[in-house]
Amino acid sequence: MSPVTDAPNATASLSEITHDEIFAGHLGGKLSVELSAPLETQRDLSIAYTPGVAQVSRAIAQDVELCKRYTWTDRLVVVVSDGTAVLGLGDIGPRASLPVMEGKAALFKKFAGLNSIPIVLDTKDVDEIVETVVRLRPSFGAVNLEDISAPRCFEVEKRLIEALDCPVMHDDQHGTAIVVLAALNGAAKVQGRAIDGLKVVVSGAGAAGVACTNILLAAGVRDVTVLDSKGIIGSDRSDLNDVKAELATRTNPRGLTGGAAEALNGADVFLGLSAGLIAEELIASMAPESIVFAMSNPDPEIHPEVAGKYAAIVATGRSDFPNQINNVLAFPGVFKGALDAGARRITEGMKIAAAEAILSVVAEELGPDKIVPSPLDPRVAPAVAEAVAAAARAEGVA
Amino acid sequence: MSPVTDAPNATASLSEITHDEIFAGHLGGKLSVELSAPLETQRDLSIAYTPGVAQVSRAIAQDVELCKRYTWTDRLVVVVSDGTAVLGLGDIGPRASLPVMEGKAALFKKFAGLNSIPIVLDTKDVDEIVETVVRLRPSFGAVNLEDISAPRCFEVEKRLIEALDCPVMHDDQHGTAIVVLAALNGAAKVQGRAIDGLKVVVSGAGAAGVACTNILLAAGVRDVTVLDSKGIIGSDRSDLNDVKAELATRTNPRGLTGGAAEALNGADVFLGLSAGLIAEELIASMAPESIVFAMSNPDPEIHPEVAGKYAAIVATGRSDFPNQINNVLAFPGVFKGALDAGARRITEGMKIAAAEAILSVVAEELGPDKIVPSPLDPRVAPAVAEAVAAAARAEGVA
Repeated sequence: MSPVTDAPNATASLSEITHDEIFAGHLGGKLSVELSAPLETQRDLSIAYTPGVAQVSRAIAQDVELCKRYTWTDRLVVVVSDGTAVLGLGDIGPRASLPVMEGKAALFKKFAGLNSIPIVLDTKDVDEIVETVVRLRPSFGAVNLEDISAPRCFEVEKRLIEALDCPVMHDDQHGTAIVVLAALNGAAKVQGRAIDGLKVVVSGAGAAGVACTNILLAAGVRDVTVLDSKGIIGSDRSDLNDVKAELATRTNPRGLTGGAAEALNGADVFLGLSAGLIAEELIASMAPESIVFAMSNPDPEIHPEVAGKYAAIVATGRSDFPNQINNVLAFPGVFKGALDAGARRITEGMKIAAAEAILSVVAEELGPDKIVPSPLDPRVAPAVAEAVAAAARAEGVA
Repeated sequence: MSPVTDAPNATASLSEITHDEIFAGHLGGKLSVELSAPLETQRDLSIAYTPGVAQVSRAIAQDVELCKRYTWTDRLVVVVSDGTAVLGLGDIGPRASLPVMEGKAALFKKFAGLNSIPIVLDTKDVDEIVETVVRLRPSFGAVNLEDISAPRCFEVEKRLIEALDCPVMHDDQHGTAIVVLAALNGAAKVQGRAIDGLKVVVSGAGAAGVACTNILLAAGVRDVTVLDSKGIIGSDRSDLNDVKAELATRTNPRGLTGGAAEALNGADVFLGLSAGLIAEELIASMAPESIVFAMSNPDPEIHPEVAGKYAAIVATGRSDFPNQINNVLAFPGVFKGALDAGARRITEGMKIAAAEAILSVVAEELGPDKIVPSPLDPRVAPAVAEAVAAAARAEGVA
């Protein structure tokens, strides 16, 4: 295997990667716990373990804040999942979700230098998930919720934010939303357009769809139409859960009814955030200079080469095509910034600051095939962390 | 700081180690999560994360056993504590217990090559501790319970062994018992005596005291007398909890009453497993050629140099004196052996096999200042692991 460089357009095609190569890459897992203090001599053992450790434990017992200084927990992000909404694969269970969670933990280390461990739970009950993470609180410094199905994910996140005095973020919601906002701003900038005038169709009213809709509205987009598996979400629908009913009051300003065909006809932007496929003719029906983000993983809603026949700018969530809209551009820096600042929570302002910082890194390099930085761009996480920490201090949550 | 070698009698005196040096050794914690698969190129990202990871997750969803092969969990030991019985410091809480738990996790890696993470819980309720660990089951391969106070620890361990299909061991009980049995056999061998005829006094009826008593009785010692904070445990006592009342039926064959003075008068062996101090004159009252294991941490029940004025063989739990009776001789190899064999639980036979393996390593080197191997002896964990795995297979739990 020859190394693939990270030049802007040098993407590896998955067709070159074999099944065996993938499974070999996951053999024994992708994480390792290592010692950050030596344990070679009796003296080392006397310092790191007994009797020396007793002095450190006594000190923390007297001043519990010292635990941030003398344990690894202050820089430890737990990646918590119940395995109910894994990639585009759905409810495959906690054990099958582990390769994804290990990958996530590896990315935290790689891009933000943060320690991270996967915690997958053998329960899907919201009360039990919340209760379990609260009981684990002394073990970590921040919580990245991952691949928990909607609408349960909204309540799990809300209740954990209320219960815990540390950063908590459901990445499928807010990590995605941050990167989508950065990418849409990038695409609009390439085209010399402003995002507030764009007609945006969001396919999927799950975790990512709801969070993307919210961040786009907050950023000034006025015309967002959301599709779920039954069609366009609007006031005419009587089958909506609370989250979707609330969404109906803030979206679909033209009162559209029907399905994807009605929503996409003449639209400027398609944001694919569900596992549902979109037919080629629907992409063809969009307005000129259209923007298509087909972000479902591992299978995009439409193949990027097909979408590219009609759309001016195409992005996916995959690492083997240009314009990868991947949460890895956001979450490592967001958590690093929040922990660097000692933030007790992650605010909307911190998320917007993260999106701006992501785009700022490639401000001078933008083009139709580069609307966001490469996920491997080492400049991103430090820029995001700095912006997020500054926003946390400005908002008084640090 | 000059390195201290691990020659048999080259122990570092704690007086040479400063407060600052100890705290510097714990700064930022003692553990780090590292990547065991590369994440340098787009190709790496396509293999380890999206889209490649989906193939691995799909495979585990179809055959959940593959999770042992393609995630880190099968070789991951969680060190679980509620911080209620930390070293000899007592109930100092989960955060203050963390430096000890991190040290434990580091020792698992150092001696057995196993990944290990500390999980400290913000609850002391037995039901909640059990429930929480059961919910975390898909996240790990084995459970090392640590520093949970008696008698709660007995029930927590019993219920987790029943609920989980993986190795569970409360190290303060069984790790201590394994090493004490190895050390007592070593001391008796040095003196040319058999252990079954020794009069043994166990000070402390907590986790370690109960487990040591059990393993000594199982190994053939006939005369064990146990002391708790109120005195000798015997059938005359009306203030005993269930665990101690049961112990009274199997110990104290001479029907002794009173306290440490009555128990130690003429005794051959003192096992100190509580934080209570023992006066010099009580050690002086023991039989000739007495054996004193003063194992409380960080402060032994009697200073080893004082005990040495009367006793033929003295051991402590500390790394800065000879004959360190430290659980690190047992737990890394016990868990490695259990995981190597795929054992569903840790049996009494596996524990006895571990004790024999520990002593076997120094069979040719025994002496009054070397009744067990050094905790840093790299031969111990592999020998213990091999013996434990063989015992697991022989007993049909693998």
